Amino acid sequence: MTIYLHDVPLPEARKRFESALVTAGLWGLLEAEAIPLDQNAVIRVLAEPVWAKISSPHYHSAAMDGFAVRSDKTIGALPTQPVLLKFGGYDEIQATVYIDTGDPLPEWADAVIPIENVEPLDDHGHPAIDPRHPAAIQIRAAVTPWSHVRVIGEDIIASQLVLPAGHTLRPVDLGAIAACGHESVRVARKPRVAIIPTGSELQPIGTHACRGEIIEYNSLVMASQVRLWGGDTTRMPITPDVFDDIKKRVEEASLEHDLVLLNAGSSAGSKDYSASVIETLGEVLVHGIAVRPGHPVILGMIDFHHGDIPKRIPIIGVPGYPVSAALTGELFVEPLITKWLGRIQAEPSHITATLTRKVTSSPGDDDYMRVVVGRVGNKILAAPLSRGAGVITSLVRADGIAVLPRGTQGLPAGENIKVNLFRPVTDLENVIFAIGSHDLTLDIMAQYLAPCDRRLTSANVGSLGGLIALSRNEAHLAGSHLLDPDSGEYNVSYVEKYLPRRKVKIVNLVGRQQGLLVQKDNPKRIESLEDLARSDVKYINRQRGAGTRVLLDYYLDRLGIAIDDINGYQQEEFSHLSVAAAVSSKRADCGLGIAAAAGALGLDFIPLYKERYDLIIPAEFFSDDLLSPLLELLVTSEFQQAVLSLPGYDVTQMGSLMAELG
Amino acid sequence: MTIYLHDVPLPEARKRFESALVTAGLWGLLEAEAIPLDQNAVIRVLAEPVWAKISSPHYHSAAMDGFAVRSDKTIGALPTQPVLLKFGGYDEIQATVYIDTGDPLPEWADAVIPIENVEPLDDHGHPAIDPRHPAAIQIRAAVTPWSHVRVIGEDIIASQLVLPAGHTLRPVDLGAIAACGHESVRVARKPRVAIIPTGSELQPIGTHACRGEIIEYNSLVMASQVRLWGGDTTRMPITPDVFDDIKKRVEEASLEHDLVLLNAGSSAGSKDYSASVIETLGEVLVHGIAVRPGHPVILGMIDFHHGDIPKRIPIIGVPGYPVSAALTGELFVEPLITKWLGRIQAEPSHITATLTRKVTSSPGDDDYMRVVVGRVGNKILAAPLSRGAGVITSLVRADGIAVLPRGTQGLPAGENIKVNLFRPVTDLENVIFAIGSHDLTLDIMAQYLAPCDRRLTSANVGSLGGLIALSRNEAHLAGSHLLDPDSGEYNVSYVEKYLPRRKVKIVNLVGRQQGLLVQKDNPKRIESLEDLARSDVKYINRQRGAGTRVLLDYYLDRLGIAIDDINGYQQEEFSHLSVAAAVSSKRADCGLGIAAAAGALGLDFIPLYKERYDLIIPAEFFSDDLLSPLLELLVTSEFQQAVLSLPGYDVTQMGSLMAELG
Repeated sequence: MTIYLHDVPLPEARKRFESALVTAGLWGLLEAEAIPLDQNAVIRVLAEPVWAKISSPHYHSAAMDGFAVRSDKTIGALPTQPVLLKFGGYDEIQATVYIDTGDPLPEWADAVIPIENVEPLDDHGHPAIDPRHPAAIQIRAAVTPWSHVRVIGEDIIASQLVLPAGHTLRPVDLGAIAACGHESVRVARKPRVAIIPTGSELQPIGTHACRGEIIEYNSLVMASQVRLWGGDTTRMPITPDVFDDIKKRVEEASLEHDLVLLNAGSSAGSKDYSASVIETLGEVLVHGIAVRPGHPVILGMIDFHHGDIPKRIPIIGVPGYPVSAALTGELFVEPLITKWLGRIQAEPSHITATLTRKVTSSPGDDDYMRVVVGRVGNKILAAPLSRGAGVITSLVRADGIAVLPRGTQGLPAGENIKVNLFRPVTDLENVIFAIGSHDLTLDIMAQYLAPCDRRLTSANVGSLGGLIALSRNEAHLAGSHLLDPDSGEYNVSYVEKYLPRRKVKIVNLVGRQQGLLVQKDNPKRIESLEDLARSDVKYINRQRGAGTRVLLDYYLDRLGIAIDDINGYQQEEFSHLSVAAAVSSKRADCGLGIAAAAGALGLDFIPLYKERYDLIIPAEFFSDDLLSPLLELLVTSEFQQAVLSLPGYDVTQMGSLMAELG
Repeated sequence: MTIYLHDVPLPEARKRFESALVTAGLWGLLEAEAIPLDQNAVIRVLAEPVWAKISSPHYHSAAMDGFAVRSDKTIGALPTQPVLLKFGGYDEIQATVYIDTGDPLPEWADAVIPIENVEPLDDHGHPAIDPRHPAAIQIRAAVTPWSHVRVIGEDIIASQLVLPAGHTLRPVDLGAIAACGHESVRVARKPRVAIIPTGSELQPIGTHACRGEIIEYNSLVMASQVRLWGGDTTRMPITPDVFDDIKKRVEEASLEHDLVLLNAGSSAGSKDYSASVIETLGEVLVHGIAVRPGHPVILGMIDFHHGDIPKRIPIIGVPGYPVSAALTGELFVEPLITKWLGRIQAEPSHITATLTRKVTSSPGDDDYMRVVVGRVGNKILAAPLSRGAGVITSLVRADGIAVLPRGTQGLPAGENIKVNLFRPVTDLENVIFAIGSHDLTLDIMAQYLAPCDRRLTSANVGSLGGLIALSRNEAHLAGSHLLDPDSGEYNVSYVEKYLPRRKVKIVNLVGRQQGLLVQKDNPKRIESLEDLARSDVKYINRQRGAGTRVLLDYYLDRLGIAIDDINGYQQEEFSHLSVAAAVSSKRADCGLGIAAAAGALGLDFIPLYKERYDLIIPAEFFSDDLLSPLLELLVTSEFQQAVLSLPGYDVTQMGSLMAELG
């Protein structure tokens, strides 16, 4: 019995899959079909090159509103020696007619003189009343043959290559294809992909999920991905973890599709039936791939009969964690669809960036790390996001992905890495890197800055961590609420110590209430810091360097409470919300934090201390255009009101300059 | 009577339009609507921020397949001192159960030990047969609390900002929104845009267009653009150039749409009714904008009643030339739709590139120049494409657009310009710049190279022009067929002269037949170069520096024919196909060129001379990975057969190295 997987390296997995597809005749353009140009041809992929059937324009025409002439009749015209051409046609006495832009050039003509360059005259030699129907025109310069004429084939010449096969159609392409005489276009048929969500714990979107139940959204994410890549999708109903049910569903899906994605059950847990179903219906090529996240992938083939015809189609067992599922789509489904469409695929846009912190990596795997990318001063920085396979917000927040290749144990901070980007490079210039202490108002700020084309990205490393990041030029600003135990003053002495000789502005964001977050109705009757020493109370702490930790230690010291007496003092979380989540889930009975975090998760809050939370901003960024919408925001009553809607905040000093250092 | 327009600068035009829209209450989010998450929510734009309703995960769960334990029961476990935990639950004697990844953690547990890190034992202390249902497990290391547990809120904490308003939804976003408790999402309603093609000369796609008729495809291009930008579109039937018909159509379109695009008739020609229709129905804000191409734009507002309610919507008179129409879409329609959707719009990706040739520009206008961009050696180059407003292939071929701002007379070659890119920057690394003489096999080559992720871009500047471009490092290779009149040898002496001290390889592409292209059935009985001196024969020439021109002059000299005797010798075209088009359209009776060009346009061909057409490739590019698919292609029989399907080619030396210089 398999209890864990023997992962094969990605290139080997790809080779096995590709070779099975080649054997099945499925490693190339799936099928071509003709569609009318005007029926959603955009984003479809050309199955054949488009050659011009006719030239465009297909007749000589006027490029300007003006008078058609024979150029040889204008020879000798000079400012001082105008030539007069009789209006009305071309014969012994007449020599010109008026034509609009786009009108066919008369057979006898070989040039057009724009209306603004002639003098239309009436029978008496006066300016004509209707300049387009004069008796004659007077011109004061000769014209060269074919001037202001769009000649046949100016745009496209019959037989020319207009677009290559494999090209993804854009709006202007449709125009060019129509212009050269086509009304339909041969494109690759859309691959049909079935997505089967399996799992007894799964509930459809829109139901209330109880403990042990999970909202099924992987099939939605995968279906949306496949459609963007150019496929058609069927989301099958949720199938419980029953071998026969899954087998039946896969058989059913095979009949009408080109590819089956069987989601979850792809590992080797006790209820993981994907591998055995695939083995029963066909062949497991690979079970387990050395990539993180996403290693329990299955690649296989399903055999069946369609009528009397034996058929074989690929199936992919997709891991259940959302990040793994999305990554499996990118690693295996997108390349397959691209191949089936015959699409010419550009290499993803990438950039070299400096890693903001040390990362570790499993040396046996290719590790796909999600990062936020932005520019701070002259450096392009990549800040790693959560590595968890279950953290879909890491994909939502990511600007790109960096691969830590097999054989790497990890990388130190400051290392240069290649990041494959999800967004255009220029977009990264609008990222504001906030680092340091976490405060909920930063979320609101991010929301308010978005319409100003600024993306505020905040990393929560605690107040001290923020100052250190500023000293390394790895952020534009740091949120900080560090209390100096000696002076009772906030932030200034810390900034002087950690950012010496640096010009820095300290701007107040909020005043806020710190206190104890306790469970609803406070069952353990926790009232003050003294209660933390009780043996029946489990505390959850903040990490070293967090302003809240400094505050705790300051008051514990003043109260004479020993940290060894606090059960859970060693358990650290990195944000107020994480502390609130720990209390809400009963991992702990209480934690020090802000009122807003308690309010967010429906906890009770015991107010204890008021503190100041400032933004520490190096002077060069303070005056930078990047930050100006943020600084302006702080003094708008709209934003201040939004902050006041959260419990425990004071905005009386918001936006005030508290200190200027350096 | 207006006969030409007084263009206003773009910023002024935008200001007038915006101010009218503000007054009408139409400069902002149009409307919000709730849509189910699983109904094509991708690419829709959030009308409101998404805040997490619930945490995700919403219960503690196993992060790995393994055994749920209480961490305090593992204290003291060491490799030499294993701890034994009885299997089956948690009470006086039992201390563990098996759970799969994703299963809820039992209330009593606070950690999971992965199955591969334990020794499952049976009642006799032997390895258990079913490792997931042992009698006990033996562990040799203590675990820390909450290890291998996905704690509540690991991904999303209730109340957190998940996505800001204005965000364009991607597949992973749908997952995050579902995960945090939503089943629907509030997005901006799609703006409804009516597109009215007008013009008596227009014919629908799929009809045969006679002389003076044009296939109407602007409405297709614009509708496709609008849909990509996030709008819904109605393409109205073609309306002839009749004031009342157009007026009626605009009134009809106004009722059900947010914006009307009235295509063509926007200038001041005799059949241009757009301005007067708009004036009758509402207000013309701007008529004529100082941009090229596309200056005859009308911006206006239409007033009407919907039932009893007075309404006002914007209308844009869009110029008829296809490039102008597409550009008008980008300048006015896209920003308006973006505003109506409330979408956060990233600045377009751009790059600085060196202009390959001198360009002139009308100083009164912002001039939007289409360019091909690629890298040659260390230089990023921008090669201008046709500037004509009628040349839609210039948009098809373009990698980006550069603006020559008002006040500029033009720019010299070698100038650095900013290019707004249509493609990802990395895509530009795959562009092969071919320059020089034109040959139809280059089109076929482009088609064959596309699947190898190489874009072959050829600029036709004649053989000599190609060598000069190589000397300036502005191309990777040049097609050349320059005959040395003294030696009768091809290319070598020219390369020695124009690329001295440069390592260069000369590789044969084809042998080909040059001859006279004449009208079908050769009505003028043209048989040889001597006929060019006949007074009833009109010749069309190639430009100076073209190999074909060199060939002509060589044989004229040998035959003793004076160029002054040739009618049309001064008329120059830049490619074989253009010469063929000139003959086909009867602008000329004959021209010297290749058989394939005659074949392409159904002309007769009088074969005269055989010549060699080579690729001139600097050694550094010859050995570069970029060109290797091209060099490999030359020796495949598939490509050679494709070339032989054209008339007049000889492939016996294709791919052979003819000379190595330097």
